[in-house]
Amino acid sequence: MQPPERPRRRDCDSSKALPQVAKSSSIPGPTANRLGLILRELQHCQRSGQMTIRSGFLARRLGLSDSQIRRDLAQLGQLGKRGVGYDVIELIARLRNMLGTDGQWRTILVGLGNLGSALVGYRSFREQGFQLVAIYEADPTKTGQTIDGVPVLPIDSIEATLPKLNVDLAILAVPTEAATAVAERLYRLGIGGILNFAPVTLNQSPSTAIIDVDLAIEMQRLAFAVVNRQRSS
Amino acid sequence: MQPPERPRRRDCDSSKALPQVAKSSSIPGPTANRLGLILRELQHCQRSGQMTIRSGFLARRLGLSDSQIRRDLAQLGQLGKRGVGYDVIELIARLRNMLGTDGQWRTILVGLGNLGSALVGYRSFREQGFQLVAIYEADPTKTGQTIDGVPVLPIDSIEATLPKLNVDLAILAVPTEAATAVAERLYRLGIGGILNFAPVTLNQSPSTAIIDVDLAIEMQRLAFAVVNRQRSS
Repeated sequence: MQPPERPRRRDCDSSKALPQVAKSSSIPGPTANRLGLILRELQHCQRSGQMTIRSGFLARRLGLSDSQIRRDLAQLGQLGKRGVGYDVIELIARLRNMLGTDGQWRTILVGLGNLGSALVGYRSFREQGFQLVAIYEADPTKTGQTIDGVPVLPIDSIEATLPKLNVDLAILAVPTEAATAVAERLYRLGIGGILNFAPVTLNQSPSTAIIDVDLAIEMQRLAFAVVNRQRSS
Repeated sequence: MQPPERPRRRDCDSSKALPQVAKSSSIPGPTANRLGLILRELQHCQRSGQMTIRSGFLARRLGLSDSQIRRDLAQLGQLGKRGVGYDVIELIARLRNMLGTDGQWRTILVGLGNLGSALVGYRSFREQGFQLVAIYEADPTKTGQTIDGVPVLPIDSIEATLPKLNVDLAILAVPTEAATAVAERLYRLGIGGILNFAPVTLNQSPSTAIIDVDLAIEMQRLAFAVVNRQRSS
């Protein structure tokens, strides 16, 4: 089998501006990774209604030293208040800006099965800057409709239609046996990133970032939290 | 409104053995958190087919120092090989044993909508030690059947039936507006942990661990990976 042609970046429209990378080009890799983990932790805090957070709490959660957290966050400017901590919402906004993830991301969903249907209704995607612009599906009885204003297109039209949509990201929610082939098509179309729900190893692509959502790992996190809770109580 | 009675732990059968906490009681909290993050990273590596891993790779991914990673992993015994790294599968097994998450966990699913139906078919749950023992659902047209041998029971029977099932964990996949009330019922039934898919803040419970799966945060991770990739290329 021939190896697939190296995917080109955004061959649809190279002039299209990507979500802006603010100051992130000056952050060294390990720091950027730590800031990404801090951001994720803060988003969990925000979700649970916490308004302020102390560096010591973040340090314990991430297994880093307090001074490391404070050094990292000092790069965002003068933010924390002594004895009070950091404002969670302000810190999230600064981090997203610094990490370059505060833009608008045009997103497609591939696969309108049970999981895909659940994802279409997921309201916080839009709030976080992810705009669903099309849904692709193999089953012809499901295509041709629109859901919440989003068209459901035949997967076989993806090579013809995707380049016109200026898409940044794809959510892959197809059956396991279809995932690898669909991902290869997305690579060739120059998609920037794939959120993969299929429990399968996608081939790597030099120009497409892949994040796997592995629900069994989330269950492991829960088991770990239960064991930890028993230990500390 | 009366505050709910403080949930009792496992009032169904207090003699039932919990998944065994191996040596974890001797691990200090921050170390346990770091080991949890390392485990998660290793599981992602395993999923992508990587057989060995070096401490420096883990250090970069987690924003820790190489020596910190090596000190943490040295607690698991003599494992890494100089110039080769650690065996991913062996390291995962040791970490799960040390963290006490290698037992069997009896699990229920609450909510058989689109998301719940997708989760029932999620094959790697069982491989990772999570055994689905019952599904609870409010819609009477869906109850009374079995799916893959798992009974679908009416949610209104949960107080009567759950105590007989010796359940450890619950996956909460009900509509947003129902999530808080269902979680309170699970707390009162003494469930050990809840994996919550509803984009809503559950009240805290002193005896139930909660892990939120926030798909918008996963999308943020993807956006971050795309930006990082652009920066490093």
